[in-house]
Amino acid sequence: MAKIPVLADVTSANNELADELRAELARRGILTLNLIASPGAGKTTLLERTIAALAGELRLAVVEGDLATSLDAERIVQAGAPAVQINTGGGCHLEAQMVRQALKQIDLDQTDVLVIENVGNLVCPTGWDLGEDAKVVVASLPEGDDKPLKYPSAFATAQAVVVNKIDLEPYLPARAETMRANALRINGSLAVFAVSCATGAGLEGWLDWLRGRVREKRAAHQRAAQASAHA
Amino acid sequence: MAKIPVLADVTSANNELADELRAELARRGILTLNLIASPGAGKTTLLERTIAALAGELRLAVVEGDLATSLDAERIVQAGAPAVQINTGGGCHLEAQMVRQALKQIDLDQTDVLVIENVGNLVCPTGWDLGEDAKVVVASLPEGDDKPLKYPSAFATAQAVVVNKIDLEPYLPARAETMRANALRINGSLAVFAVSCATGAGLEGWLDWLRGRVREKRAAHQRAAQASAHA
Repeated sequence: MAKIPVLADVTSANNELADELRAELARRGILTLNLIASPGAGKTTLLERTIAALAGELRLAVVEGDLATSLDAERIVQAGAPAVQINTGGGCHLEAQMVRQALKQIDLDQTDVLVIENVGNLVCPTGWDLGEDAKVVVASLPEGDDKPLKYPSAFATAQAVVVNKIDLEPYLPARAETMRANALRINGSLAVFAVSCATGAGLEGWLDWLRGRVREKRAAHQRAAQASAHA
Repeated sequence: MAKIPVLADVTSANNELADELRAELARRGILTLNLIASPGAGKTTLLERTIAALAGELRLAVVEGDLATSLDAERIVQAGAPAVQINTGGGCHLEAQMVRQALKQIDLDQTDVLVIENVGNLVCPTGWDLGEDAKVVVASLPEGDDKPLKYPSAFATAQAVVVNKIDLEPYLPARAETMRANALRINGSLAVFAVSCATGAGLEGWLDWLRGRVREKRAAHQRAAQASAHA
């Protein structure tokens, strides 16, 4: 019988494309984040706050992933950053090919930080590389402080966690400190920020982390440019 | 070239098994619900409340789906109902074959209502039939009242929606009435209950709906038994 070619890893084609995107974005010195969270954890609100706080300092651009509607992209544009909406139909996560399409609509020469806001889902996006430098999880305190233990893969693969809605802590059984400790049990190298995107509390730590990642990215970009000039 | 058999629909094998489960559960007169929600929306807390409220009246049994841990099954047993925990590893939804395995651990002769608590995910579980009579969505108000519009498939395929955590409404921009209206825009036949599993507010409407579904199931069961006796 003739040998049938089998695609061994359904994500391998995606990963190849993600590596190409990462190389292209690195060549331009753009920091790229893949924002992962449950529905309604506050990804878009965090971005609205971040865009406003960094206006005039860093230029953000946003790729928005949703099953349906362009509500989130509209909010980002309203906040002052360019945004492209991807509707996945029923798809539970973004894929690198969708991001590649979306980037055609973004002026990358005018972008310092690209944020890809994934579909609201704490499970599926984890396994799909989008060419990002880092995954960031937004975890909403009302979801309960045990979430890192119950959805470990998102936390295990991220570099940072933003614990959001801490303004609700007085009315909840959940504690931000417990969520932080549980996140660190899953991944001890996580940067964890407890914030309220409603009040603005705690955002400075997150913004400083972001600034630090941009500085690192620019330094790496400069080293690469010098190496190529000396070559 | 030899014809290669292709599985046309990846869910068809699942659906066949789900139909078998549904027939078996119907033969026993057991009402079966598939509980779907985002992480931390309050599925387990709703079940704890429901088990306590219906103690001595209806016997619940629970199949718990989680990526990891047996925290939820422990809570159900603590609340007074038998529970089986399924850990999916990384899997983003339960499948009928997992439920079939789990049911071997449950005494169905002592069960009036079987609740299958799916993995916390508002997207993927929607497409996987588990042999249930009805899907029930738990939607947490802190997630935002626009969630039915952004995650329509879960709401479109459900029979009931429990809007949870309404005790937090004074501290949120979201409104339970707006979430109800948005859910009904997606699916006008939904039964919608605004509740607080923390305070117990609004639970009576949910419990009455559940009692009504059990009565219907028993009546259908009785008709089927009479028809088979007359045959």
